[in-house]
Amino acid sequence: MTDLKQSIFLRTKEDIESIEKELEKELDPYLDIVHDIAGHILFAGGKRIRPLLMVLCARLCGYNGTFAKTLSVIFEYLHTSTLLHDDLIDGAVLRRGKPAAHSLWDNSIVVLTGDFLFAKAGSIAAESGNIKIMKTLSDVYQKMAQGEIHQLLNKGSIDISEEEYFDVIRSKTGVLIEGACRVGALLANASEQEEKAVALYGSWFGLVFQMIDDMLDYTADTDSLGKNVGTDLREGKLTLPVIYALKKANKDDRSFMEEIISNKIFSLEQFEQFKQLLIKYKGLEYVEGLAKKYIAEAVSALSIFDDSKTKDTLLMITNYFLERKE
Amino acid sequence: MTDLKQSIFLRTKEDIESIEKELEKELDPYLDIVHDIAGHILFAGGKRIRPLLMVLCARLCGYNGTFAKTLSVIFEYLHTSTLLHDDLIDGAVLRRGKPAAHSLWDNSIVVLTGDFLFAKAGSIAAESGNIKIMKTLSDVYQKMAQGEIHQLLNKGSIDISEEEYFDVIRSKTGVLIEGACRVGALLANASEQEEKAVALYGSWFGLVFQMIDDMLDYTADTDSLGKNVGTDLREGKLTLPVIYALKKANKDDRSFMEEIISNKIFSLEQFEQFKQLLIKYKGLEYVEGLAKKYIAEAVSALSIFDDSKTKDTLLMITNYFLERKE
Repeated sequence: MTDLKQSIFLRTKEDIESIEKELEKELDPYLDIVHDIAGHILFAGGKRIRPLLMVLCARLCGYNGTFAKTLSVIFEYLHTSTLLHDDLIDGAVLRRGKPAAHSLWDNSIVVLTGDFLFAKAGSIAAESGNIKIMKTLSDVYQKMAQGEIHQLLNKGSIDISEEEYFDVIRSKTGVLIEGACRVGALLANASEQEEKAVALYGSWFGLVFQMIDDMLDYTADTDSLGKNVGTDLREGKLTLPVIYALKKANKDDRSFMEEIISNKIFSLEQFEQFKQLLIKYKGLEYVEGLAKKYIAEAVSALSIFDDSKTKDTLLMITNYFLERKE
Repeated sequence: MTDLKQSIFLRTKEDIESIEKELEKELDPYLDIVHDIAGHILFAGGKRIRPLLMVLCARLCGYNGTFAKTLSVIFEYLHTSTLLHDDLIDGAVLRRGKPAAHSLWDNSIVVLTGDFLFAKAGSIAAESGNIKIMKTLSDVYQKMAQGEIHQLLNKGSIDISEEEYFDVIRSKTGVLIEGACRVGALLANASEQEEKAVALYGSWFGLVFQMIDDMLDYTADTDSLGKNVGTDLREGKLTLPVIYALKKANKDDRSFMEEIISNKIFSLEQFEQFKQLLIKYKGLEYVEGLAKKYIAEAVSALSIFDDSKTKDTLLMITNYFLERKE
């Protein structure tokens, strides 16, 4: 474990433990199979980054109560719900190092379990009695659903622009993380300025989070990633390093890349060759440079807050996700 | 058209027209395909019974505004969302006389369009700014999701009790109709007594609505039903007339019925023979008798309200659904 990872671990240990307890407690469906399917992903070692950000943003805005941890689970439930529906769509085989739910259970029950988690999230949110929180969530849901469809429609196309890529990851990942941060502020009855600041932090961080995740699909190894590398490529899903490299590549290299993308089948050797082209045309470098700029924006968004341990932790997490290699 | 149907048509024409307009207006997704898929079911001649009940219950409780019609569409969106996810699950071929969405589009985009409608409903509900409405909806979502899973797990089993059947139809259909009626009252700022009364009306009516629908799967003809008769049987889904007849049947008849149920494949002749057994063992008669009793409960729930045209319309609708043959 790196020093940074170790420090974050120690600082957030207590929060994460409470979040884990709430995740288990709030799940409680009266049908065991729902618990099994949802739990299969929920308790397979997720990073809990979404609930954690909500809890930390609430605290940053002065919140001291215990309800934050209960409320925070909705962001993990929502995320898991989309994973269940996505894995079905993607035909993914591994998720968090375990077989994807749809390869163990019927598609139909997996879809319904996703629906259940979605509903459960709404139910917990309603407990807050806060209409602004409910509005934020509704908005998040809708953008996410549209984003997922958008991504599905783009699949297999080799003419995705950078702008389209960012549209997709914003609605797929950005809005949920932004929403988690905003809900933290709303729970704390923060000022409008504070609410905007943490939401902005979340929206920049969310982009980086997904950009790095997409890059790791090329640079990590399967064991540490918990899913197969090259999955995006195998599904014809174009991400930023590829979009950038395609734009810069000479005719021959571009032809090779396009063939791999449309075939969706390739040898390990070909995958390695594809990856070398991402390096040659600085696709990975480009993503890293952009991610650094966006992280700077995220950090700057929090500048209105006084220094504190909580603020420090948020900044450490932000930096860690920029550097993560697994 | 029967006289009763004609009177209801004239009394509700204006409301239904406004509801249709809102359904179209609120849909507005930025991706055309979502509009196509959602619209494929949404605008295939649904009865709009759920939005209509909400609007009428709001009016019964003294509501005069225009927002009721906007808000009411969420009940059609939610219903459509479950149809999209259900059709995938059921493998249904016809829905409202048209091919089911999943036979025209990829499963994945159909699931996501269902998610979009679900999200959209939440978004419109949030516009109400009424936390009680949001809580009611969250509760409805969750019960529905659990009910769907319950029904899926029961499929193919020949040991379903009447109690289990009612559990399933309550959560599958009852809670949404009950929710529509309750939300009408909440929008009208009704007294707690009034809210309870319309919710009780909705919950009894919801049961009858599904019981009759399930019976029509045996007694109607495909043209007027807009879906294939015998669909439930073909999917191994046991409904009340069958559960009752199985309990009463002699050994030979029961064996025949069980064979059809587990085979899920049968000739028209065998289907007719199966139906004759439902008649012989008074399965259909039993459902009709029970439905009449439940309708009486629904009517009695509204007794706290003074007589009015709106109350009249609600009672007429209730009676119509008891008698409907298509």
